[in-house]
Amino acid sequence: MKFRRLPVRQLASGDQLSIPVYDFKGSKPGAPSVYLQSAMHGSEVQGSLVLALLIEHLQKHPPLGNVRIVANANPLGLNEKVGEYTAGRFDLSTGENFNRRYFLPTEGFDWAKFQKHFFGAPEEKIFAAFRKELKKRIAARAQQQAPYADRLAVRLQLLSIDYNFCLDLHCANRSVRHLYTPAYAKDDAAYFGIPFQLLVPNKFGGAMDEVFFSPWWTLAEKLGTSIPVQSFTLEFGDHEIASMVEAKKDLAGVLHYLAHKGVTKGKPKAGHPVNCELASYHVVHAPVGGITHWVAPLGKRVKKDALLARILVFRERPPRGEEHLVHRAPEFIGHEEL
Amino acid sequence: MKFRRLPVRQLASGDQLSIPVYDFKGSKPGAPSVYLQSAMHGSEVQGSLVLALLIEHLQKHPPLGNVRIVANANPLGLNEKVGEYTAGRFDLSTGENFNRRYFLPTEGFDWAKFQKHFFGAPEEKIFAAFRKELKKRIAARAQQQAPYADRLAVRLQLLSIDYNFCLDLHCANRSVRHLYTPAYAKDDAAYFGIPFQLLVPNKFGGAMDEVFFSPWWTLAEKLGTSIPVQSFTLEFGDHEIASMVEAKKDLAGVLHYLAHKGVTKGKPKAGHPVNCELASYHVVHAPVGGITHWVAPLGKRVKKDALLARILVFRERPPRGEEHLVHRAPEFIGHEEL
Amino acid sequence: MKFRRLPVRQLASGDQLSIPVYDFKGSKPGAPSVYLQSAMHGSEVQGSLVLALLIEHLQKHPPLGNVRIVANANPLGLNEKVGEYTAGRFDLSTGENFNRRYFLPTEGFDWAKFQKHFFGAPEEKIFAAFRKELKKRIAARAQQQAPYADRLAVRLQLLSIDYNFCLDLHCANRSVRHLYTPAYAKDDAAYFGIPFQLLVPNKFGGAMDEVFFSPWWTLAEKLGTSIPVQSFTLEFGDHEIASMVEAKKDLAGVLHYLAHKGVTKGKPKAGHPVNCELASYHVVHAPVGGITHWVAPLGKRVKKDALLARILVFRERPPRGEEHLVHRAPEFIGHEEL
Amino acid sequence: MKFRRLPVRQLASGDQLSIPVYDFKGSKPGAPSVYLQSAMHGSEVQGSLVLALLIEHLQKHPPLGNVRIVANANPLGLNEKVGEYTAGRFDLSTGENFNRRYFLPTEGFDWAKFQKHFFGAPEEKIFAAFRKELKKRIAARAQQQAPYADRLAVRLQLLSIDYNFCLDLHCANRSVRHLYTPAYAKDDAAYFGIPFQLLVPNKFGGAMDEVFFSPWWTLAEKLGTSIPVQSFTLEFGDHEIASMVEAKKDLAGVLHYLAHKGVTKGKPKAGHPVNCELASYHVVHAPVGGITHWVAPLGKRVKKDALLARILVFRERPPRGEEHLVHRAPEFIGHEEL
Repeated sequence: MKFRRLPVRQLASGDQLSIPVYDFKGSKPGAPSVYLQSAMHGSEVQGSLVLALLIEHLQKHPPLGNVRIVANANPLGLNEKVGEYTAGRFDLSTGENFNRRYFLPTEGFDWAKFQKHFFGAPEEKIFAAFRKELKKRIAARAQQQAPYADRLAVRLQLLSIDYNFCLDLHCANRSVRHLYTPAYAKDDAAYFGIPFQLLVPNKFGGAMDEVFFSPWWTLAEKLGTSIPVQSFTLEFGDHEIASMVEAKKDLAGVLHYLAHKGVTKGKPKAGHPVNCELASYHVVHAPVGGITHWVAPLGKRVKKDALLARILVFRERPPRGEEHLVHRAPEFIGHEEL
Repeated sequence: MKFRRLPVRQLASGDQLSIPVYDFKGSKPGAPSVYLQSAMHGSEVQGSLVLALLIEHLQKHPPLGNVRIVANANPLGLNEKVGEYTAGRFDLSTGENFNRRYFLPTEGFDWAKFQKHFFGAPEEKIFAAFRKELKKRIAARAQQQAPYADRLAVRLQLLSIDYNFCLDLHCANRSVRHLYTPAYAKDDAAYFGIPFQLLVPNKFGGAMDEVFFSPWWTLAEKLGTSIPVQSFTLEFGDHEIASMVEAKKDLAGVLHYLAHKGVTKGKPKAGHPVNCELASYHVVHAPVGGITHWVAPLGKRVKKDALLARILVFRERPPRGEEHLVHRAPEFIGHEEL
Repeated sequence: MKFRRLPVRQLASGDQLSIPVYDFKGSKPGAPSVYLQSAMHGSEVQGSLVLALLIEHLQKHPPLGNVRIVANANPLGLNEKVGEYTAGRFDLSTGENFNRRYFLPTEGFDWAKFQKHFFGAPEEKIFAAFRKELKKRIAARAQQQAPYADRLAVRLQLLSIDYNFCLDLHCANRSVRHLYTPAYAKDDAAYFGIPFQLLVPNKFGGAMDEVFFSPWWTLAEKLGTSIPVQSFTLEFGDHEIASMVEAKKDLAGVLHYLAHKGVTKGKPKAGHPVNCELASYHVVHAPVGGITHWVAPLGKRVKKDALLARILVFRERPPRGEEHLVHRAPEFIGHEEL
Repeated sequence: MKFRRLPVRQLASGDQLSIPVYDFKGSKPGAPSVYLQSAMHGSEVQGSLVLALLIEHLQKHPPLGNVRIVANANPLGLNEKVGEYTAGRFDLSTGENFNRRYFLPTEGFDWAKFQKHFFGAPEEKIFAAFRKELKKRIAARAQQQAPYADRLAVRLQLLSIDYNFCLDLHCANRSVRHLYTPAYAKDDAAYFGIPFQLLVPNKFGGAMDEVFFSPWWTLAEKLGTSIPVQSFTLEFGDHEIASMVEAKKDLAGVLHYLAHKGVTKGKPKAGHPVNCELASYHVVHAPVGGITHWVAPLGKRVKKDALLARILVFRERPPRGEEHLVHRAPEFIGHEEL
């Protein structure tokens, strides 16, 4: 195992922020490789705990393919504190969400020319040429002056571009475990053992998983190739919570996927996740401010028209009042005025 | 029940922040009275949920003594957001902790003169004169220009000064339920049914409970009277968590105390809390930054020398390494370098 | 003059945030109308001072056309404080820039159908139908649940949609006075007397000025009509600075433009601004953190290759050292290590 | 000149924050020594610019006495950003003001015993013993686990304890140049050429200047010795402003003081500052929120009863209205409602 810390920002104080990079060389030539990173939003500590366990595991059980691990991928986000809170979702200087700043290297790509040039070529030749082109563009971008979030993103793209699979470990504020998977990889993703899967189409919104798979998915659409990469955003529960008990379970799922894909040894076992198209994923906005008190249980089905939450506002009227508080789920949160 | 919203701050936008005040008139003349407030630090939402249930309860079961309830005592703190976090522990403009700005009305008080004047007088006469004096001083302070935290504090002191008991409902970041009680009131406090009690001496550090009991405790010390007031800071678990299930239990404890003290009807039942002198309460500081992973279970006894927590830092060495990580509790947190 | 405060957000504390709206009815039927707003980013106080003077002016000198003024358009932004700083550029909850959340009402618009339907129709008929359609779409959007920044933006769009001109008053952090003008309106914009003009093409990036002119500019492109609206982002110097002396000058420029366009009486006078295509506007990113000490004078021409700024970092080497610090403007900031 | 970076905090990311320390050895044995630091509140960049120039100066003109310089004394404060603002006045985790956390080493000191022991001893012997005792206590404190602000403060105390003079370079938000001087040193302080001096009594409020002089002042009071140290808080104008033109003037003042005290060579020249007892220093609190528009000129005398500022709030009434806005300075800010 090879360890480095790569500097990613020189602070005003003259000190350096850096990211730790662990490289495990695979024992089996030609075996598929994986890149993993955690905590791009700083507060997503569970993913880093899982990676600590994975590093420990791989030291005892060397992988077949190459494995690169970047734990705590975003030192600025991790260090951003307000009170005891880690305010690492966005850059406090700019408001930019750290997972929306990746650079799509196929912007302005001449697909027609590429298609013509490689017509009838074998896949491995096409893939090698395409990866080389992506890498060249990412490297050029990395030379440009840019805000921290953009520079960090492109650095992580350079670190991951040579790998077959990319696992980006996140957490959500309060949430059940779920993941974002490109729709084409949903059967493989079942090996993670995560109960809920959001199926993502070939669309780029600036996130790591998208920027990793989207160029190759587009290539497949344009040239009729297979898709040689997979990438996922894994949401390992509530942010700011580091649970060793859960981390062992989370790691087990990651290892099932890696064994299934041939990166590590082992007998993989698939789960039976609930799949949901991203288009069917709804965000519910509170109609008023107040103290939100959830009624619907997290991670369970709710009936249409069921009340999801009450919002407590202190007014004269008694609390938990009239039945007009019950609204149609999932479009509205019911709220009450006390 | 009488309801008002008292304005406490005019914002730069011209809008008003206000606090909701609920007044229940007691049915039994001369019965003891209670003042309750919640969420002085904004994020302490559980206390506000408990007060919502208490309001509902008192509407069905009118109290014997007067009850005043100020839910969400600090609108600025409640509205201060960074990410989804409520950054209400201190004023983001000034850094001032909202529960350290109360005004001690006995500052510069001429105890000798007061003692001489009331020598041999009956307690009720002394108490009435003393309360009048406190009130006059608080009212004078309320006229002065001051930062928001100071002005709010003195407003809340004016609202509570006429009551016998003061319950200030808080939460801590992640914590078991516990309370701060003036040492002289620890047997009464057992009725709250809260498992851990911190016994506070007669010292003023700027907090609501202290400012409420300290003048009267000092009076007792100087003139040999009894102490006619009690006040407590109740810590209802983790901040940012509103749990209806827990709120019902929390309310039950509050009602046991109130029944025990004669403010409400009911058959009070005392608990068996663990008592701890404030001087024996230790804060443990992390020696380095990192991802803290608690080993010691929250709310349970730990052995001397036991490891309390691990701090994960990504370095080359393997995780969960040498046994030098085990330190003497409670003075150090063990930490490891990965 | 008619005055209202429109509620735009109910805070967690139950209090309301609102925006002040001043309506002046024009004395001359059919005269062009103007909508003005200020401080969308909270800290842009100079614009609000200018609007205060404008309100005063219009009370003495009633306008020919209708004038609507929304001073402090964003109460949340204005009230967001960290230290003495007004952190109103983005929503501290979400990171969203308040001037990037406007809703483009022509999204999915069937231009071909509209074109066919109004072929050969007189402009005023086309304009009336188009404005009606825009208004309908904005009103529908305003009904949807959405985060505060989005809801506020659409409310301001509804307030402004009936006006001919839109002046959105901003400030930049530290800056000379400049403005963003749609390229087609640059000669009219010269009446503001602002020395620097950025010429904006028909592109929508989420800002108020763009959302106001872009649908009409596209209409002109599609149907060959004239463009009946104009909108500008005026940058009135440094944010957080309210200068009465400068406000009077800023107001004079606004009044020259309004007189020129027939909204108010007066003898308009045009200035001679420097025009710059938006594509030629460069943002310079600091290559390292440090204390930036500007060398290039603000608002003055700098030569190609001139040093723009030094960045002071405390290292062993002496300050203001070697000449390698001189870089090609405007692509790099020179920096030195002390 | 000797240069070091001392680590003062290990961040969660594993990176180190450090402070740069420059040591110049004096050419004249026994000459008085000086310790300087800047930017304890992060945003006070002007002081750091002055120190950069001082380092440059001392390299060309070596001092007679020892000089220690800690530029950017607080890396956490310097790196704390919200928007483009440096939020370094207090620790965003705790709200603690970075210049209120110094440790008074004479707390619990047995003055009577010390006095008895050194009765009749020569001053240099007393001073040496007293400094040794202070140092021992500070070093012991530095071993304790504590929050960052406390640990940093005690580190800076250790770095400065051996020096005769301490210059702590600060800035205020918007301000004229002024300084805090212990009352006994006001004639020497006049050499700084700073127009306004606040005369501080022997009271400890947690700041650097106080913790440096207070033990020695108390020693003088108890034992009748002279006071061998001086320390000052110099306020070099607005924070967040780095002006080279002003820095040269600021440096000139510092050098006049140092030459006057024999730390450097040169012909010192004293200024004629306005002196003001700290007790006569008034802070004015805004009675309402709004856009403050200063009427009283900064740094100039205002008459009793003069209006200091207007606070603009958008209400229906016309701006700059009735004369009841004029209040007695300095107790109130007038405010108006528009």
